[in-house]
Amino acid sequence: MLEQKPEDYSYRYAMVGKHIMGLVESGALKPGDRLPSLRHMSGKMRVSVTTVSQAYVELESQGVIEARPKSGFFVRPNFKNMLPPPALDADIPIEPREVNRGEMVRTVMGLLGRKDILSFGMACPDASLLPGKELSRIMSSILRENANSVIGYEMVSGNPELRKQIAFRCIDAGAAVMPDDVIVTTGAMEAISIAIQCLTRPGDVVVIQSPAFYCFLQLLDTLGLRVIEIPSRPEGGICPGDLARAVNQYDVKACVLNPNFNNPDGSIMSDADKEEIVRLLAKKFIPLIEDDVSGDIYFGPVRPQVCKKFDRNGLVMLCSSFSKTIAPGYRVGWLIPGKFYGRALEIKANTSVCTASPTQMVVAEFLRTGKYERHLKRLRTAIEKQMQTTQLAISRYFPSGTKVTRPTGGPLLWVELPKGVDSREYFFRARSEGIGVVPGQIFSTYEKYNNFFRLTCCGLWDKRIEKGIERLGRLAGTAHAGE
Amino acid sequence: MLEQKPEDYSYRYAMVGKHIMGLVESGALKPGDRLPSLRHMSGKMRVSVTTVSQAYVELESQGVIEARPKSGFFVRPNFKNMLPPPALDADIPIEPREVNRGEMVRTVMGLLGRKDILSFGMACPDASLLPGKELSRIMSSILRENANSVIGYEMVSGNPELRKQIAFRCIDAGAAVMPDDVIVTTGAMEAISIAIQCLTRPGDVVVIQSPAFYCFLQLLDTLGLRVIEIPSRPEGGICPGDLARAVNQYDVKACVLNPNFNNPDGSIMSDADKEEIVRLLAKKFIPLIEDDVSGDIYFGPVRPQVCKKFDRNGLVMLCSSFSKTIAPGYRVGWLIPGKFYGRALEIKANTSVCTASPTQMVVAEFLRTGKYERHLKRLRTAIEKQMQTTQLAISRYFPSGTKVTRPTGGPLLWVELPKGVDSREYFFRARSEGIGVVPGQIFSTYEKYNNFFRLTCCGLWDKRIEKGIERLGRLAGTAHAGE
Repeated sequence: MLEQKPEDYSYRYAMVGKHIMGLVESGALKPGDRLPSLRHMSGKMRVSVTTVSQAYVELESQGVIEARPKSGFFVRPNFKNMLPPPALDADIPIEPREVNRGEMVRTVMGLLGRKDILSFGMACPDASLLPGKELSRIMSSILRENANSVIGYEMVSGNPELRKQIAFRCIDAGAAVMPDDVIVTTGAMEAISIAIQCLTRPGDVVVIQSPAFYCFLQLLDTLGLRVIEIPSRPEGGICPGDLARAVNQYDVKACVLNPNFNNPDGSIMSDADKEEIVRLLAKKFIPLIEDDVSGDIYFGPVRPQVCKKFDRNGLVMLCSSFSKTIAPGYRVGWLIPGKFYGRALEIKANTSVCTASPTQMVVAEFLRTGKYERHLKRLRTAIEKQMQTTQLAISRYFPSGTKVTRPTGGPLLWVELPKGVDSREYFFRARSEGIGVVPGQIFSTYEKYNNFFRLTCCGLWDKRIEKGIERLGRLAGTAHAGE
Repeated sequence: MLEQKPEDYSYRYAMVGKHIMGLVESGALKPGDRLPSLRHMSGKMRVSVTTVSQAYVELESQGVIEARPKSGFFVRPNFKNMLPPPALDADIPIEPREVNRGEMVRTVMGLLGRKDILSFGMACPDASLLPGKELSRIMSSILRENANSVIGYEMVSGNPELRKQIAFRCIDAGAAVMPDDVIVTTGAMEAISIAIQCLTRPGDVVVIQSPAFYCFLQLLDTLGLRVIEIPSRPEGGICPGDLARAVNQYDVKACVLNPNFNNPDGSIMSDADKEEIVRLLAKKFIPLIEDDVSGDIYFGPVRPQVCKKFDRNGLVMLCSSFSKTIAPGYRVGWLIPGKFYGRALEIKANTSVCTASPTQMVVAEFLRTGKYERHLKRLRTAIEKQMQTTQLAISRYFPSGTKVTRPTGGPLLWVELPKGVDSREYFFRARSEGIGVVPGQIFSTYEKYNNFFRLTCCGLWDKRIEKGIERLGRLAGTAHAGE
């Protein structure tokens, strides 16, 4: 119970901050306006004066308000509201294409694990937000008690306790899953890779969201597949109607979607759309590979549901991992392959035999003891706050015409720069200044996102990160002006 | 220096044991003969009386000799010499075939990680022979000092220190390799899988040794490939001439070989054959995927060389791992892909992003501090002794007509049962008695090895293991009689 306190506290002060931001964004409080006094706000929101004060200090550090001696707090006169989100530009033909971004993807992946880069590129939280110490404690205790099991093989399907815990967690996401339905994988990427290998042969056609995570496109390329891109709206993801057109017109072997907080645009599909998509794919016996890696990082009150919830035929293959929430370097993910279980298990056995034992055991224990759930609460609050601060910083530092998404979960922002900025060139200029971003170009086989880039809200806000955003903004400005 | 002592000691007494076994096997000492006295032997071999005494006790426990009160040690009157090795049965056509062992391989893999099975099936040493405690100590110290790095991503190509250490070790095996030539993988299986994916598309033809590790056959099946099997001699592996015939006749896209201690027959190719094979493949620009997982477990005085040593064109892709020597459950292996580095790295990124960080860090440290080399010395001695004891037990307990390989390295014995014993049925009967072996049938697409099975010399010899061998022998006898 004591452990809950700091969390409740930070939750409350975040609520106050959100409320004020809402007033500012809606125009109820305009630049230059004076904020309600601490005492007034405290009474109104039923929190302590300290909590309100904390929220005001926070908003001040975000550049939203300023304190004037003896007068109170005011919305900064030069405050710029959050930028509008990019609009959907749906004019891409629905037809199979070769994937063609290999070289650039390799260049971007080259920044992985590099310590000399201020990384806005990696789609997972900074170590400061992850439970490194707690995991180490668990690992140490497992090593003391189980030095031998830790070095031995796990089952091909994975550690039994871990599979049980994963099955439990699926309930929250709406899916009824048994431990024996789960295959533990070396991260979600192996899950996706196994799923696609279950279903396709080179030359086959796969449907994917556009924009889509570049590693998925790259994987499809490696496997010799062609893709049909279905435009994704920054709010709402893909339209079932577009998907229906694709599957009616072409012999589609699989569909890869990221319905909750799509990488990179952060879009989330409605439950009705999810259900409709599962239904229309099932009619054609087309399996759906569902990526849900960011599903646990929602900012709203309830866990978004997965498409797997609506799966009556075992055709949805649910893929996820703990890389975005606990430990990217642990490489622990999972696949719930539905009716393709047998083939998936065989491919798993032939790709990596089984996933590493020590990391599976640690994650299982972290979940079993309820620590994961508590950690997630803190993580969600931190990422949401970081995202808001980043959005505001983008408003301040980026050239006019810039747009940015407003996701309701996940750690990613999708930024549209003014037309004419080339994201590849932008990537190289940022890299030469020691900053990592991911250029929009590699999220599609079309040239649609050439003036976009993806930015991760991954760390705790500090001067170094603010300077990084400022520099990125300046680079965008000069790239634009020099065009 | 002090640490070396027990090792030297065990090395010396193993030498004495080997010497006596040599006398018995050659017939210089016959069943019923009296052995030289402890004092005589001590003088002759320049070791202490205690060392000789230890060796004699060991030979007694292996059933080779017996002590008679007040008379000394004698070769047991009913001692049976080691069985002869299987002969090569080369009558298979050299032509492409579909792989067809899926179901049985799945059944065999189902025993992986099961605690209720006395496993002679897993091709890696028992935990009692592995440095579990030392690895745990290293892990704990890394966790204390690096709690954050341990949870973060490593580079796609792997931990830099680990790659350096792997490159160092390649010198021993004859290959000049730089750290940047190495990609760390999730076990050797991922290395092989990536290598094959680099080179082939479904329908392609791949050459493989026969018998071959069933997971390789299975992997080729998963990828939709056809295989040409080249017969492997229990001593000497494949003949370059046979390989030449295959590549001259068919459009071969890759060749998968296990030149050092082939799984399952333990065969090792001569350096001359290795060189000839690399040369003849290079002439046709056919890449060689070389599996060297057991290369470090040699019983002779020098490390066997790898084909990679003779590679002038970057066409040899060397695959190995620490699964057979340190920790199978760590899933740390490597791939040295030669000229296919770029494509291999891309496939690695798209299959598992990177290998788990904590296990890479621990293995790197274990190697850096020289502990791996010391551990290997102990491991080789232990496995060799275990293998000899197992071979002798098979002589005692198996029906006449049984043959068994005499490998000079690796943990595997390849046992030929009398004609008429069906290895699949044998597998199921052994499993129902709680014993795991691998049926010969799954090591080829032909029915050639239906009366073979593979047996791992993986643990320390004890009553439980002896009982297991005894029961396997009885099962073989009844299967034979009941035929």
